[in-house]
Amino acid sequence: MKPFVFVNIASSIDGKISDESRKQVRISCREDFQRVDRLRAFSDAIMVGIGTVLSDDPSLTVKDERLRYERVQAGKDENPIRVVVDSRLRIPLNAKILDDRARTIVATTEKGLERVKLIEERAEVVVFGREKVDLRLLCEYLYKIGVRRLMVEGGGTLINSLLREKMIDEFNIYYGNMIIGGRNSPTVVDGESFADPVRLELISCQKLGEGIFTRWRVVYR
Amino acid sequence: MKPFVFVNIASSIDGKISDESRKQVRISCREDFQRVDRLRAFSDAIMVGIGTVLSDDPSLTVKDERLRYERVQAGKDENPIRVVVDSRLRIPLNAKILDDRARTIVATTEKGLERVKLIEERAEVVVFGREKVDLRLLCEYLYKIGVRRLMVEGGGTLINSLLREKMIDEFNIYYGNMIIGGRNSPTVVDGESFADPVRLELISCQKLGEGIFTRWRVVYR
Repeated sequence: MKPFVFVNIASSIDGKISDESRKQVRISCREDFQRVDRLRAFSDAIMVGIGTVLSDDPSLTVKDERLRYERVQAGKDENPIRVVVDSRLRIPLNAKILDDRARTIVATTEKGLERVKLIEERAEVVVFGREKVDLRLLCEYLYKIGVRRLMVEGGGTLINSLLREKMIDEFNIYYGNMIIGGRNSPTVVDGESFADPVRLELISCQKLGEGIFTRWRVVYR
Repeated sequence: MKPFVFVNIASSIDGKISDESRKQVRISCREDFQRVDRLRAFSDAIMVGIGTVLSDDPSLTVKDERLRYERVQAGKDENPIRVVVDSRLRIPLNAKILDDRARTIVATTEKGLERVKLIEERAEVVVFGREKVDLRLLCEYLYKIGVRRLMVEGGGTLINSLLREKMIDEFNIYYGNMIIGGRNSPTVVDGESFADPVRLELISCQKLGEGIFTRWRVVYR
């Protein structure tokens, strides 16, 4: 058993999530930030890859106080669990995702064992796999501890790996009204390309702020 | 003076126009092919970069006989002029774009002079620039010979260069219902990324076939 896994990500119309320097580019608009905050609040856990932690240092908490309050009223933690996929345990000790505002799980492999003690002071560390985090085992574990809705916020390498494991059920992409361009810019789905493209079904598309919000169901064959 | 320049391209939802092998991937659906064919028929010229010629070998002609007939009735050639941007004149002699179904202009530079005689047997060769085709001069030239609507069909490197020269007025992107993925897959806008993203205004978005057709106006600052 695994949670319902959905990607939520903002992209330029040419599929880039940042420029080639990998510095953060503000792609979303206010309307989209509010939508993402609600999505977070209604998720049980939020997952990112270590690349995203290293380049963006996100805190992955719910920003709207009312949404956090509603979670507490419903008997939940203020914020969803934060999950970092970090095969070699490269996460910096001062990463925002390791602060005490929410429970954090860092998933690593036998390659990451050296730093486990250090990170365990700030987060729960789980080991799944030898070289690359076994995402199936990780998702099963998350299900076991009660995660039913898992939101994946990037980056493109983690999303590629999750797709290969047929773990992703849905894509939410917000296309901001901009072109970032760049052969080497990170995109929504990086890694190696799929010889047979992954098929989707359009759920909805609508104008949101100055951009477009689209939802797609993944159809594995 | 320059023509109205618009890009029309099909992309996976993650911005890829092909996979990392650069082999052609069928992204469009039948409904979109018909739309593109009409767009071609209502254009005066269609431009592609040499990379697209080398990987896809497109003929860039209007497929629908009635649309060709309507062009002739209106006093035009059956097909729009085909324009290849080919700085080093690498175009193969057997490229479909050099067949006799339409007028073809190959734009090159002083770097391409060696093969000019050879190509001139099959197409008009124009020389603008020393190392890279001067796209402003090329667009001015196209305007002078009567081109008022110029459709650009890719690839991502040419589109990047045209954007840098502030030559593109509009983007038409069809997002097919698929994920191609790949860090090295060609995307809608390749080249180097824009330090300051190019801004757009959404003109329209709508479901078309199994995907989404979007139109954006480019806003240069």
